[in-house]
Amino acid sequence: MSKRTCLYLGPAGSFCHQAALLLNDDFELQPAATVAEIVAAVESGNADFGLVPIENSVDGEVTSTVDSIVFNTVDVLVRDEVVVPVEFDVFVKPGVTSITRAISHPVGLAQCQRYIAENSLQVETAASTSAAVASVAQGEATDIGALASPIAGALYGLVPLARAVQDNAGAHTKFYQLGKSIRARQAGREYRTWVTVIPPTNRTGILGDMLAEFSSRGISLSSLSSRPLRADIGAYAFNFTIEGYVQDEQVRAALEAIIALGSRVRVVGSFPEWAGVGVVGAVIGLPGVGAGSKVSFSNQLDVAVEE
Amino acid sequence: MSKRTCLYLGPAGSFCHQAALLLNDDFELQPAATVAEIVAAVESGNADFGLVPIENSVDGEVTSTVDSIVFNTVDVLVRDEVVVPVEFDVFVKPGVTSITRAISHPVGLAQCQRYIAENSLQVETAASTSAAVASVAQGEATDIGALASPIAGALYGLVPLARAVQDNAGAHTKFYQLGKSIRARQAGREYRTWVTVIPPTNRTGILGDMLAEFSSRGISLSSLSSRPLRADIGAYAFNFTIEGYVQDEQVRAALEAIIALGSRVRVVGSFPEWAGVGVVGAVIGLPGVGAGSKVSFSNQLDVAVEE
Repeated sequence: MSKRTCLYLGPAGSFCHQAALLLNDDFELQPAATVAEIVAAVESGNADFGLVPIENSVDGEVTSTVDSIVFNTVDVLVRDEVVVPVEFDVFVKPGVTSITRAISHPVGLAQCQRYIAENSLQVETAASTSAAVASVAQGEATDIGALASPIAGALYGLVPLARAVQDNAGAHTKFYQLGKSIRARQAGREYRTWVTVIPPTNRTGILGDMLAEFSSRGISLSSLSSRPLRADIGAYAFNFTIEGYVQDEQVRAALEAIIALGSRVRVVGSFPEWAGVGVVGAVIGLPGVGAGSKVSFSNQLDVAVEE
Repeated sequence: MSKRTCLYLGPAGSFCHQAALLLNDDFELQPAATVAEIVAAVESGNADFGLVPIENSVDGEVTSTVDSIVFNTVDVLVRDEVVVPVEFDVFVKPGVTSITRAISHPVGLAQCQRYIAENSLQVETAASTSAAVASVAQGEATDIGALASPIAGALYGLVPLARAVQDNAGAHTKFYQLGKSIRARQAGREYRTWVTVIPPTNRTGILGDMLAEFSSRGISLSSLSSRPLRADIGAYAFNFTIEGYVQDEQVRAALEAIIALGSRVRVVGSFPEWAGVGVVGAVIGLPGVGAGSKVSFSNQLDVAVEE
């Protein structure tokens, strides 16, 4: 049997490619140009699996991946997640020890402002971080470095001049692996289940009623977001990510109770929580509550109003 | 008195610049390089106001604007919103009637794939859509067009060869105007209030309790999202956007009741709903529930599990 294919948001050397390698599946990895193309290929069966950025993407995609999956597919499922630290390295031709120019995708240049300023580098743009690396590898110049993901240099025969030159340490980006089935439950791993629910009414209280079906069964919420539905002004869908596997008795009972309230439910995925490097607990790539934040949550309801 | 300043995510000719012009305030508009810089300048008082993309940004920013405002400032307030249709035009030197090359930010190129393919154009990248327009204006070549926002061409003395060449019609992007005060209530306009709440416990039921304080007072929810707090694993903040002005009696009573539950509340903004061109009701740039979506919300809890 030939290897099953997994598309990722390319080109080769992208952060999504790095995420695909971290998953370490025995799949044939193939780059694709857009999230929409990947989602459609998994839906149609042209690809067995797909890997897509789900939050802010350093590969520069702007489409809402969540909306693409929920509203543009019928039976695509999220079966795994991967979290990748956002690290930009500077890649040069072997032997080069100093540069005067940096090239990258504009997002890469924007994320490495400090390094660029400290080294007084001139900047040039490329269509992707991988294209930047390729242009350095294929060009004659030795005074230029490409800002790209840690895996990109070796793919094109370049070496790192400096590592982790991004302005913000500690940022991560999350990817979901898509398929037509979920993985069977493995012992010893924590699971999450993503369901999207269209409530029977836009009465605000209905959301509380649905949440009570989770809380009364001891099911914790991992994330929640609302999305307006264009076709029906004023109507909302809710994305719930809850802790547990979709076949767990309590999870199933909660979802059945939510359906009994009159809601329409779609199970969008059920997958093991990422347990790889670079992640502290469940919290990913978000700012902390520092001293300023504590002040700002001061229960002050009298805000300044312009004269 | 000199004019008050409003920073926008530049360079001049960006979609954020277009949004600033649509607001039609009597402010001196100045471009800034990043959302973080704009938020910090408003916080410090170096700028009176700032305009920032709040959702997917076609100007290519990836930082989470919501997190920047909520967690990195103490008293910045959202005082207005603007919604701009995502339209890319093709700008050329006056007199040019055909082109063989297109230049833009990679996001712009990605959004105009169909036009590029139909016209068999070679593509070149620039650091921003405005930089693309500037390079066409300043270069000698007449076989090249820049893909950029509708306002960008005139700023650099170019003319449109074609209009609205983006692949997806109907997409919009939303911007928030930031300041240190909110606008006084104007008669005849609908308002929204954004509050971020850190609940006293991560018990799932607490969210239902908070929602009940809104629903029992007839206050509708416009959007809701959860954000994990890095400093406190397992703890969440909730962003609620509710209908109404922060000084409305019912809104204030609901927020006081939520504080009485033990929550910490920050009023992040209170602003008139955008009533300008390009918007149908409250629903912005999101996919509809088409035939496929209806099938997908089928209450089917038995998803395929891999053997």
